[in-house]
Amino acid sequence: MLCAMAIYTPNSPGNAVPDPDTIKRAAERIAPWVHRTPVITCRSIDRLLDAEVFFKCENLQKVGAFKARGASNAVFSLSDEQAGRGVATHSSGNHAQALAYAAANRGVRAHIVMPSTSPEVKIDAVLGYGADITFCEPNQKAREDALEKIVRKTGAVFIHPYDNYGIIAGQATAAMELIDEVPGLDIIMTPVGGGGLLSGTLLSAHYFSPDTKVIAGEPGGADDAFRSLKEGKILESVNPDTIADGLLTSLGEKTFPIIRDYVDSILLASDEFIIKSMRLIWERAKLVVEPSGAVPLAALLQNDIDIAGKRIGIILSGGNADIDRLPWKASS
Amino acid sequence: MLCAMAIYTPNSPGNAVPDPDTIKRAAERIAPWVHRTPVITCRSIDRLLDAEVFFKCENLQKVGAFKARGASNAVFSLSDEQAGRGVATHSSGNHAQALAYAAANRGVRAHIVMPSTSPEVKIDAVLGYGADITFCEPNQKAREDALEKIVRKTGAVFIHPYDNYGIIAGQATAAMELIDEVPGLDIIMTPVGGGGLLSGTLLSAHYFSPDTKVIAGEPGGADDAFRSLKEGKILESVNPDTIADGLLTSLGEKTFPIIRDYVDSILLASDEFIIKSMRLIWERAKLVVEPSGAVPLAALLQNDIDIAGKRIGIILSGGNADIDRLPWKASS
Repeated sequence: MLCAMAIYTPNSPGNAVPDPDTIKRAAERIAPWVHRTPVITCRSIDRLLDAEVFFKCENLQKVGAFKARGASNAVFSLSDEQAGRGVATHSSGNHAQALAYAAANRGVRAHIVMPSTSPEVKIDAVLGYGADITFCEPNQKAREDALEKIVRKTGAVFIHPYDNYGIIAGQATAAMELIDEVPGLDIIMTPVGGGGLLSGTLLSAHYFSPDTKVIAGEPGGADDAFRSLKEGKILESVNPDTIADGLLTSLGEKTFPIIRDYVDSILLASDEFIIKSMRLIWERAKLVVEPSGAVPLAALLQNDIDIAGKRIGIILSGGNADIDRLPWKASS
Repeated sequence: MLCAMAIYTPNSPGNAVPDPDTIKRAAERIAPWVHRTPVITCRSIDRLLDAEVFFKCENLQKVGAFKARGASNAVFSLSDEQAGRGVATHSSGNHAQALAYAAANRGVRAHIVMPSTSPEVKIDAVLGYGADITFCEPNQKAREDALEKIVRKTGAVFIHPYDNYGIIAGQATAAMELIDEVPGLDIIMTPVGGGGLLSGTLLSAHYFSPDTKVIAGEPGGADDAFRSLKEGKILESVNPDTIADGLLTSLGEKTFPIIRDYVDSILLASDEFIIKSMRLIWERAKLVVEPSGAVPLAALLQNDIDIAGKRIGIILSGGNADIDRLPWKASS
């Protein structure tokens, strides 16, 4: 059972754990702005695993990641008055692009705090959606300070990348679509970083396919969710070291309880297996995925769990890889 | 109007230019063996072209290319007696894998003649489907001699990679699906090598969406179809030189008349534009395509034709690229 953990935060659209109707409404709300992404199967990967794998291709999603779902839901859930003040976040990753994209669609300002060290391609992508960027020193405190200043000055609504029920309900729509398209899944897998995608997936599986287990993959070099689950409380991600740069953050107060209550298990994957799996997905499934998106497959390949003959949905979370710097080139 | 060009060849399943029913029957016949591939859109590529592009993802097809369609149709069109003798072809490319795949599905032998210089990964793929490989010197005469010997010895049915109406009807199903899914296309584009995909696409557009123009993209370094269309007769591909290694062959007696009668135009693309377009599709659309699959987009980018605001379907023909040797690495 879910704990009564919902604390109303005025900056968060949605102030309770999303229920089935909330997720369905989120799906309707974001439908004009996101793709219903395809589900792809790949015989050679099935053979390797001796299982049936269904890849839900969020790498083919708008902005190249599932983050477009949550950001669109959060932004389009705001009242006109709230939205008129603009939205703000700090992120150097896919959430920055997703929020900029959603704000542009609603016709409101997006203020994005990005570390001054962000790759030019990510800065260009955010600027391409017409967002304002504030650069800061590349550390957590500088990010938060810069964000606070913007929110104070502009009144913009802070949209947290994952610890926000509107975001969680939006991310939940990916698994809802997958369950709708592929009946009888034994397992659904997602990567876990801050837990937005994982907690949304857990809710959708719980509501719409209660016999389906949800398992998360996490980089061994950023294993805070794994440790948090074991300890029963949120442990911080300290000095994470992994190629899966979308999964460096700690769980949040809203995502952790959902994960604690519903997840089957969290499996760790080494960077070696993440790179191997990323390569497999590119080469065999013909899909460009970023390292973070390859973590669930890596976790399956690396851990000895019984999946023979099982039907496994894997959410390929994103495709924003740097195609000029492929990890398997460097390692050869 | 189509000329009465059909000459019965006992080795060819289907002995006349496919009519609408033949293409629909082909689609039903191959449905258990091929994917209905997704259609993907990509905002940044749309912006670049100032048009709406719909990518029909045959790179996500079985064996990584549309060739699975034609080979499946040809093999499953054979009588039990014919199929029992096995099938044979010469190819070092996607048709080899596709025929091996289709034969395995029907439970019959496939004999594939491959040049001794074929990359190991392609040899392994064909062996993976349980086909017999005969190696030969890497020239046309050696291929044909080796094939003839096999056919004489085993009685196997020669399945030509493109100059075969069963193959053409199978390839036509890709455009038929695209037309079904995306109404009101102004243009459909395919690459052209031997013309199997192009002629099938032309037939489907003619039958199922007569207002849609079909335009082919061809590498400037293998421009025999372009020249053939201009001269009104088949000109051989002589010493082709292009990165698009799936498009080196000449048109065939069955594909050429269909192309001559129905194609709007053939546009040439340089290797520079092919590489640029391949990179765009990987980076922006998150899809792994081989160089040949990027030729239509390259032709659009390189040639000054009026496409503003148009709805353009592009068949991404295949995804069997060598991810260890990316052309944009070499050129940087």
